[in-house]
Amino acid sequence: MKKINVGLIGCGTVGSGVAKILMENTDLIRARVGADLILRRVADIDRKRDRGIRFDEGVLITDSYKVVDDPDIDIIVEMIGGEEVSRDMILRAIHNGKQVVTANKALLASHGNTIFREAAGKGVDLAFEASVGGCMPVIKTLRESLVGNRVKSMIGILNGTCNYILSKISDEGCTFKTALSEAQSRGFAEANPSLDVDGLDTAHKLAILTSLAYGMEINLHDIYIEGISNIAPLDIEFARDFGYRIKLLVISKNWENAVEARVHPTMIPFDNLLSNVNGTFNAITITGDAVGDILLYGHGAGMMPTASAVVSDIVDLARNILSGAKSRIPLLSYQMNHIRKIPIMPIDDISTHYYFRFSALDRPGVLSRISGILGDHKISIKSVHQKGRKSGGSVPIVMLTHIAREADVRKALSEIALLDIVSDRPVLIRIENENQED
Amino acid sequence: MKKINVGLIGCGTVGSGVAKILMENTDLIRARVGADLILRRVADIDRKRDRGIRFDEGVLITDSYKVVDDPDIDIIVEMIGGEEVSRDMILRAIHNGKQVVTANKALLASHGNTIFREAAGKGVDLAFEASVGGCMPVIKTLRESLVGNRVKSMIGILNGTCNYILSKISDEGCTFKTALSEAQSRGFAEANPSLDVDGLDTAHKLAILTSLAYGMEINLHDIYIEGISNIAPLDIEFARDFGYRIKLLVISKNWENAVEARVHPTMIPFDNLLSNVNGTFNAITITGDAVGDILLYGHGAGMMPTASAVVSDIVDLARNILSGAKSRIPLLSYQMNHIRKIPIMPIDDISTHYYFRFSALDRPGVLSRISGILGDHKISIKSVHQKGRKSGGSVPIVMLTHIAREADVRKALSEIALLDIVSDRPVLIRIENENQED
Repeated sequence: MKKINVGLIGCGTVGSGVAKILMENTDLIRARVGADLILRRVADIDRKRDRGIRFDEGVLITDSYKVVDDPDIDIIVEMIGGEEVSRDMILRAIHNGKQVVTANKALLASHGNTIFREAAGKGVDLAFEASVGGCMPVIKTLRESLVGNRVKSMIGILNGTCNYILSKISDEGCTFKTALSEAQSRGFAEANPSLDVDGLDTAHKLAILTSLAYGMEINLHDIYIEGISNIAPLDIEFARDFGYRIKLLVISKNWENAVEARVHPTMIPFDNLLSNVNGTFNAITITGDAVGDILLYGHGAGMMPTASAVVSDIVDLARNILSGAKSRIPLLSYQMNHIRKIPIMPIDDISTHYYFRFSALDRPGVLSRISGILGDHKISIKSVHQKGRKSGGSVPIVMLTHIAREADVRKALSEIALLDIVSDRPVLIRIENENQED
Repeated sequence: MKKINVGLIGCGTVGSGVAKILMENTDLIRARVGADLILRRVADIDRKRDRGIRFDEGVLITDSYKVVDDPDIDIIVEMIGGEEVSRDMILRAIHNGKQVVTANKALLASHGNTIFREAAGKGVDLAFEASVGGCMPVIKTLRESLVGNRVKSMIGILNGTCNYILSKISDEGCTFKTALSEAQSRGFAEANPSLDVDGLDTAHKLAILTSLAYGMEINLHDIYIEGISNIAPLDIEFARDFGYRIKLLVISKNWENAVEARVHPTMIPFDNLLSNVNGTFNAITITGDAVGDILLYGHGAGMMPTASAVVSDIVDLARNILSGAKSRIPLLSYQMNHIRKIPIMPIDDISTHYYFRFSALDRPGVLSRISGILGDHKISIKSVHQKGRKSGGSVPIVMLTHIAREADVRKALSEIALLDIVSDRPVLIRIENENQED
């Protein structure tokens, strides 16, 4: 039986899952690959932790260099996380001519252009399915299944923590804080949750996907990011009344010479499958010129689902080695010389539907002043709703708009915020309809 | 620029879509593959039909042999359909050492074991992504993304015609006949719709998937098949009252030494994403031991979506040729020597929840006689509903059961059918819950 030697750096939650699959599903993998994948070395600074795995003597070590530099190892799996050590280890593995698997989205979003260039230069494969959407095969779908399509748009839920929190607020009417504590106590959110709830983790994933979909360099910095910490139960309730749910979405659209790439809480209609994706699940709709819409759905995180995606990458690389395939698929989906610098549109330039909520004094003329300012900025109102009158205090005025330009919306909202009849800062939530013509 | 020559046999709807993508998205494919895919010969008996495509002089011919035997052609794409000529053409292409792409599920379900054995023997690749689920990458997902998983179950909607008809009955309360005529007039159903509405087309696809998922020979004959032509609007209404929708599902479960593989109308709860898959769309949930549930969704038919899947297969094979990869992935997901004959369980042996509707005379004692017979056969009733009394005539009595064995259910229902208080034949619809413990 042929053998492929695998070295694992970092044996935390996902790393342990990878080790478990390789060691427990050995027969299955042999029956499918026609070779044995041997976990030859595992490096982790914590050798004592109980992982529920019995490694053979000498497999579990502390020195990562002994993995990356081992001449017998064919494939290096980087599961350290972080951006410094992981980058150095991956570059060293590439330099050593090894095939590499990683799930490190933060690293790829920040240093991917360099890393992929190095790998391509050395003719080394670097697989990263688990970096986006956990076990959903979104990277394989973009690089392989949609190869004949011009990707027109991608809209998805790519952060399980945020989706859990928003589902919980929606189901139970609790506050963001309560939902976050619950997520933390159930292990769905970190002690420091900002990477998730502020949207940066989601943006890392979107940066990778836009590159693969459109053949552009990875560009994290120009992605517009808004997190979920300001979402009020009241807005979720109003959304429901209008037939929408609020999700933290990645939205990316291809305008050929520029693309949209943004991460923000968004209202989507009930009949959009994404609105029915609840709890910690992830999902993404990709629209191509030939396929129309396709949607992928699955666990976006968690030990075994993420490990499953890592193992599929290991097998892909093993199959390349076993069949003698070199550079079979370009790393970033397009041949290196076809990857362009395509600009991401500033948020001011996008156009979409909007939901506004104003806290206004309950006086005659309020509506006319607010709608007047909106009209001055070419924002056309689709409907106005004044709900739950408060005697004496302020009342919420909710508006849904036709398609408007973000720059106009921002100007109008700053003017409205200055009105003496408006108390709190106006709330703005973008709406994504399948049919955005009007 | 490197070139891969493609020959197309059969240029009907999907074939024309393939030609269009190859000829219109040439730049895109070159940027991604690093080579040109040249459509060198297209064989179709109808040369005059307007396909909206301008083939170069000499490309469109009538003689398929001139394609299959052309020594310059690397990849043969079979789009003829049917089972006789297509089988001969594919076997001849394999014999000629060519890589083959097909979307012909009927052929693979009936003759796949022979064809795949021949291809493996010649070391030739045969790709068939478009044979199941149109553009959904379900075959790639099973063969590649889930390679480290034991597949535990697959539940899906794989026939767009049936899903359109059931969605229409559900939305409009019309009869099966009306919905079918509408589907025919909109081009979603054939003039002879039996292959679709009787469930055989769906079974073809399930036969292919069970083979890939569990490493077993393709076995069409033992799949239990029930079509949708007997579904009454009344049952769809009752289903809705209980929180279910009725879909024509493929259901397959892995019991290790035997598998379930069945096609029948099934009730699924609203909160199952599959229940929200409407119109001509397809979707499938695959459950693996590591990934948990993943779901794929997309157009299951139609010119361009299906053509997109065919093109992804052509590119996969082209990439193998260009990178020198031979037999990179086993055709049926498992190495040939690991493919077993795993039996499909007879329908009598499955256990599930049931919905029954009896038309009974409105007399005292009716319920006790029916439930007595069910009890005698160890069928435990979860709830009973007697709705819409008819004066003088018969009334519908609806029952939902706990998990029961099909053999017991059939015996009980035949006994009940013989009761003088029961008028019509009892209606049986199986229910699929995520949580089937009780």
